[in-house]
Amino acid sequence: MTLSIDHTALETLAVQARRATSQLAATSTASKDRALERMAQLLIEQERPLIEANAQDLEGGRLKGLSQSFLDRLALNPERIAGMSDALRQIAAFSDPVGEITDMVVRPSGIQVGRMRIPLGVVLMIYEARPNVTADAAALCLKSGNAVILRGGSEAFCANRAIVKLWHQALLEVGLPQHAIQLVGTTDRAAVEALLKMEEWIDLVIPRGGEGLIRKVVEVSRIPVIKHYKGVCHLYVDEGADLDMAVELALNGKVQRPSVCNSLETLLVHEAVADAFLPNVVAALRAHDVQVRGCPLTQGIVPDVVPAQETDWPAEYLDLILALKVVGGMDEAIEHIERYGSSHTETIVTESHHRAQAFLRRVNSSCVLVNASTRFNDGGQLGLGAEIGISTSKLHAFGPMGLRELTTQKFIVLGQGQIRP
Amino acid sequence: MTLSIDHTALETLAVQARRATSQLAATSTASKDRALERMAQLLIEQERPLIEANAQDLEGGRLKGLSQSFLDRLALNPERIAGMSDALRQIAAFSDPVGEITDMVVRPSGIQVGRMRIPLGVVLMIYEARPNVTADAAALCLKSGNAVILRGGSEAFCANRAIVKLWHQALLEVGLPQHAIQLVGTTDRAAVEALLKMEEWIDLVIPRGGEGLIRKVVEVSRIPVIKHYKGVCHLYVDEGADLDMAVELALNGKVQRPSVCNSLETLLVHEAVADAFLPNVVAALRAHDVQVRGCPLTQGIVPDVVPAQETDWPAEYLDLILALKVVGGMDEAIEHIERYGSSHTETIVTESHHRAQAFLRRVNSSCVLVNASTRFNDGGQLGLGAEIGISTSKLHAFGPMGLRELTTQKFIVLGQGQIRP
Repeated sequence: MTLSIDHTALETLAVQARRATSQLAATSTASKDRALERMAQLLIEQERPLIEANAQDLEGGRLKGLSQSFLDRLALNPERIAGMSDALRQIAAFSDPVGEITDMVVRPSGIQVGRMRIPLGVVLMIYEARPNVTADAAALCLKSGNAVILRGGSEAFCANRAIVKLWHQALLEVGLPQHAIQLVGTTDRAAVEALLKMEEWIDLVIPRGGEGLIRKVVEVSRIPVIKHYKGVCHLYVDEGADLDMAVELALNGKVQRPSVCNSLETLLVHEAVADAFLPNVVAALRAHDVQVRGCPLTQGIVPDVVPAQETDWPAEYLDLILALKVVGGMDEAIEHIERYGSSHTETIVTESHHRAQAFLRRVNSSCVLVNASTRFNDGGQLGLGAEIGISTSKLHAFGPMGLRELTTQKFIVLGQGQIRP
Repeated sequence: MTLSIDHTALETLAVQARRATSQLAATSTASKDRALERMAQLLIEQERPLIEANAQDLEGGRLKGLSQSFLDRLALNPERIAGMSDALRQIAAFSDPVGEITDMVVRPSGIQVGRMRIPLGVVLMIYEARPNVTADAAALCLKSGNAVILRGGSEAFCANRAIVKLWHQALLEVGLPQHAIQLVGTTDRAAVEALLKMEEWIDLVIPRGGEGLIRKVVEVSRIPVIKHYKGVCHLYVDEGADLDMAVELALNGKVQRPSVCNSLETLLVHEAVADAFLPNVVAALRAHDVQVRGCPLTQGIVPDVVPAQETDWPAEYLDLILALKVVGGMDEAIEHIERYGSSHTETIVTESHHRAQAFLRRVNSSCVLVNASTRFNDGGQLGLGAEIGISTSKLHAFGPMGLRELTTQKFIVLGQGQIRP
């Protein structure tokens, strides 16, 4: 760790990554899978040095006074290492998107035109504490033929370095370029800023962490950023909905894992079902220690709810708190979502085919659901396999990003000497 | 035209565009097509006021001392207006990408998961002189369900304003929101800078113009930018290639329209065919007034070519000049393209199936061709219909962008009450 950054070293890192991309793009699926399988093996074989490196991080964290919950997230143990290893084997088993040719047609000129899927090039991952990202994000980039530059949190530096050392061994044994996976050798913030200006060498930035980190990256970067600020997810209970189902979906959305971005934050209820629904759902939520903050109409039906303030509507609680609003119908629900939502995940509970279709069409969030929990907006659940991140901006990818979203398409043309007249 | 910008007015413009998107996203294809057809009609009916507005621009341009060729590009006449009108009718005839659902599968949890194509939202177009962009870019945005903010060059301000007035009439008659198409009411550069910071309201920026304009936009913008700096396109003539075909493709690439980005700039020739090919191709090019700048090996075969300098290899001439280099084989050709190319368009002339496949796979430009002219990298020729721009960055879209590239996909989920266990 240095205090002043070495710009030349950083540029070398980026140029090496770019150079590795030519070989990576043309690497066979079999070679990439061999490297992933070998890395899965090495993580198990080299469990002890990994845990020792992690112990240094934990010791440093304790000296810095990091919280126990932070240290818990940082800690590696045999179970967690086995989990990292399993994740790599799963990624090896996914099909390789690179090289797929689609949309092949013959044009009037006689040329054949299609699109071939290719890697993006060089991906810069910026992330916080958990060292498992150093294994799984790198694995997703490798499988999709991209070179990756990893910049993990300073608190996990020793473990990250140890994991990347194993990556280099796996790549070397299989004959793949070591620069396919590189760790930034300093935890200085200025290093990140310098990398974010290297648009000539780096194709995509994926920041994973708090909203502050992500906003900072967007502001500084000249490289496209895939970002996700927050998840203010809504469930709208329609007139005529199955109210028992609605209670289950509200409960699952809020309490199954409140700390994640696809957990439920606001419940919108059609006024026609409010009298029948609100007492039940509030009781069910309270039985799981959820604090409900209600609009004036809610307060009229369930008098002892906490009155909701204007600040509750855009809030991402990530906690056992739920905002609740009675609305005049689906139009008002959609207006509320447009005004306060984060384009992340919204669901409708309805028995009306017409309104299910209209909700799916009109709500422009990354995942729109009918009669299912918001918690399904997840790469694994949606069938992408592992996910490298989630995008709530619409460019390139919208929603969870898997292997396919780490690629792009080029046009390919097969001719027999055609010229433009 | 004001000298100090009115930030509130610009923000109002952006917010109005955002508001229009809800209605636009849910508008039927029939309504959008009616608006396009009506606009095509209005351009013809209102030809006289358009030409009068354009006359003001031309008069202003002459007073500013703009060149005759610039004024020629700026000028509207009945033929050009008829061309604009035809382009709109063609866009109306394209199929609408919005609402398409693909990849629908049932997941183990029982939920059905698919992807629905949706508009991006609000597009900011920044462009230079030609007023036809005010018609066709707006038409592509409208057809794909996006709101557009147009910021044309100051030299075409009066014509652009007159065209947008017709757009408003067409939208109004069909019952679509007028704010779907708006023109920035000032040509002050500070207005563009202010808009480029409005990431909350604007989803995508498409700058069309010189490299300087585009670099400036990328530097200032917090909104994703689809960009295309330049086209340094290569043709590689392989060992065993059909040399007559190679002459035709070189000639077509260079002379058919030298001023455009997909014209040929560098010819790479396998050393095994150099003796047979170079004298013929140089003679054919010279017969069309092309200056050939050759590497030392070329100079050995065609002694009177202009010696190429290092600065010739990355040059985008856009003129009757061609750089020519003899290479040891396809590997060296691909290395040259990686080092000096612009990821735009590259073609191979070959009879070898193996090398055709390898070239297609290994060259990561937006369009890679076999035995066809670089001039085919064009939305119309590739079958996209009209194109709104071309991207040489890999995120979101790579190559010519048509209607589909003005959309994105959200996940849709149909359940029967599923929750996450």
